[in-house]
Amino acid sequence: MPPQVIMRVFMGPFEKLQAVLAEDMEAVNTLIRTRMASKHAPRIPEVTAHLVEAGGKRLRPLLTLASARLCGYHGEHHVLLAATVEFIHTATLLHDDVVDESAQRRGRPTANLLWDNKSSVLVGDYLFSRSFQLMVETGNMQALGILANASAVIAEGEVLQLSTAQDLATDEEIYLQVVRGKTAALFAAACEVGGVIANAPEAETKALRDFGDALGIAFQIVDDLLDYGGASASLGKNTGDDFRERKLTLPVILAVAKADAQERRFWERTIEKGQQSEEDLAHAIALMTSHGTLEDTRNIALDWAEKARTALEPLPQSPLKSILKDLAGFVVSRVV
Amino acid sequence: MPPQVIMRVFMGPFEKLQAVLAEDMEAVNTLIRTRMASKHAPRIPEVTAHLVEAGGKRLRPLLTLASARLCGYHGEHHVLLAATVEFIHTATLLHDDVVDESAQRRGRPTANLLWDNKSSVLVGDYLFSRSFQLMVETGNMQALGILANASAVIAEGEVLQLSTAQDLATDEEIYLQVVRGKTAALFAAACEVGGVIANAPEAETKALRDFGDALGIAFQIVDDLLDYGGASASLGKNTGDDFRERKLTLPVILAVAKADAQERRFWERTIEKGQQSEEDLAHAIALMTSHGTLEDTRNIALDWAEKARTALEPLPQSPLKSILKDLAGFVVSRVV
Repeated sequence: MPPQVIMRVFMGPFEKLQAVLAEDMEAVNTLIRTRMASKHAPRIPEVTAHLVEAGGKRLRPLLTLASARLCGYHGEHHVLLAATVEFIHTATLLHDDVVDESAQRRGRPTANLLWDNKSSVLVGDYLFSRSFQLMVETGNMQALGILANASAVIAEGEVLQLSTAQDLATDEEIYLQVVRGKTAALFAAACEVGGVIANAPEAETKALRDFGDALGIAFQIVDDLLDYGGASASLGKNTGDDFRERKLTLPVILAVAKADAQERRFWERTIEKGQQSEEDLAHAIALMTSHGTLEDTRNIALDWAEKARTALEPLPQSPLKSILKDLAGFVVSRVV
Repeated sequence: MPPQVIMRVFMGPFEKLQAVLAEDMEAVNTLIRTRMASKHAPRIPEVTAHLVEAGGKRLRPLLTLASARLCGYHGEHHVLLAATVEFIHTATLLHDDVVDESAQRRGRPTANLLWDNKSSVLVGDYLFSRSFQLMVETGNMQALGILANASAVIAEGEVLQLSTAQDLATDEEIYLQVVRGKTAALFAAACEVGGVIANAPEAETKALRDFGDALGIAFQIVDDLLDYGGASASLGKNTGDDFRERKLTLPVILAVAKADAQERRFWERTIEKGQQSEEDLAHAIALMTSHGTLEDTRNIALDWAEKARTALEPLPQSPLKSILKDLAGFVVSRVV
């Protein structure tokens, strides 16, 4: 076997995706660096470089590139769309960190901490506008519509999360709506626009969209689970952040549903009233373990990963399709 | 004379614009109310209604409608673009109030005070996304490009303003760049897209763009002047806000340029170091008066108003054109 093939045998699906799309991704990275510059306001590249160069996984732009290639695209516009998707993602991260008052992101101090909230808000707006300019360059109105809709769903989901935080009445359905907004909408759009730019038939663009949606949901559920689990170090995020921010994520929602009177009082105090002491996180995790809700959450994530794999069926067989299928399993494997 | 004509004799150009475009504007208002709704997140219409219903002047959407009609447009898409422009404006107001930590807007408490900064950031993002969806509905890629570029210039200008605040080295040129970003870019785009949607020849869309640019600059200079003047009550904004926020606006920039050593120490203390006491605002105004910089600022605003009028030359004669010409004078008349 040639060295490249041997190497791939030992690679996970994410590394395979990176390897197969390395050339495209290089073009995306160059475009991102060029477009985050600002002639007039040097603060902008400072803030964005801090975040963009911090080595995010670039999963979303990879999904756009993969979807376009999977549908046989041979042009250059998928690179514009991939950069668009990463800019939208980065803009929402900047605003999220302001909203959540976060101190760490990707293992480094957040921009709102290093500079100030003002810079994070305005630089986020700048990246959002730049993403919009990139899309316009594709001249593809359908792709623009998909990304515009995704942006609205993202913002709506974030506002919804504001009002669901601290509210024990939040159920699985509302949680799913929040997750679709904060994560799955952009995953779905990232995949769909790849198909759209390739002029793929509707059955294929829909398949890509459904894949992205399910993958995004699985990804976010795993993220929320890891926030109560052991693997958080790899996220650069501290375990228990969601608990301290009184967010109603799936592990807690399922535990509240099974709570007896005394347990319910615990959740009311810690989540609704926000009266937390040092040992409460450990007790919360103990409650979730005793009711098996961490396990249940994992199983729900596995279901979504399976839905993601199934969604890909209508697409023609290809090595990229196999990698995307494996990726769905990989996303959940972080907690399996 | 029929009553309508008699009435108009006593109307200012702004009221005339509202009267002539009343039907179009009604459609814009209906569209705005429909699109700021959110099925999932009731916080969104609460926040936007507070701001949108507060009775802003809706000058920007009026400019879009007027420009389209002036170029003979007979379709419906100018209404979408007018609502787009107002949404972008409202989104930037929400984010501005967070950045400036403002307590009042249009004579009412700001959203960031009534709700919180989080809501202002996220609802602003939502409105920005919604504006984007509205544009896509026009299917006009040129208009999309213009508004995307305007959004980027707005965000860049805001970031630039962050770094120019408190910096006495800010000169008239940098000030103009900030003003173009925070005000003139959207005025220019609002006018230009009206011409573009009407499929007007390039000489006319350029004329509209130049008109909007100069009008926006005149408008912002007057606003900055009023912040040190007597007519502030009509703005719902307290006199001296810019001074307290240590913003380098034109009246101050011109006064700093003429300052002797002692005066310079005053500006360094109050603006650069931010050490201000009760009587400093009055002293600042006294310095500006003694150097005639308030008068100079007014004259610069008048020059821009004249540029706005001249820019309209290439457009065919019509009652709407006359109203727009008068509007340029009217904008500056707030301080004449």
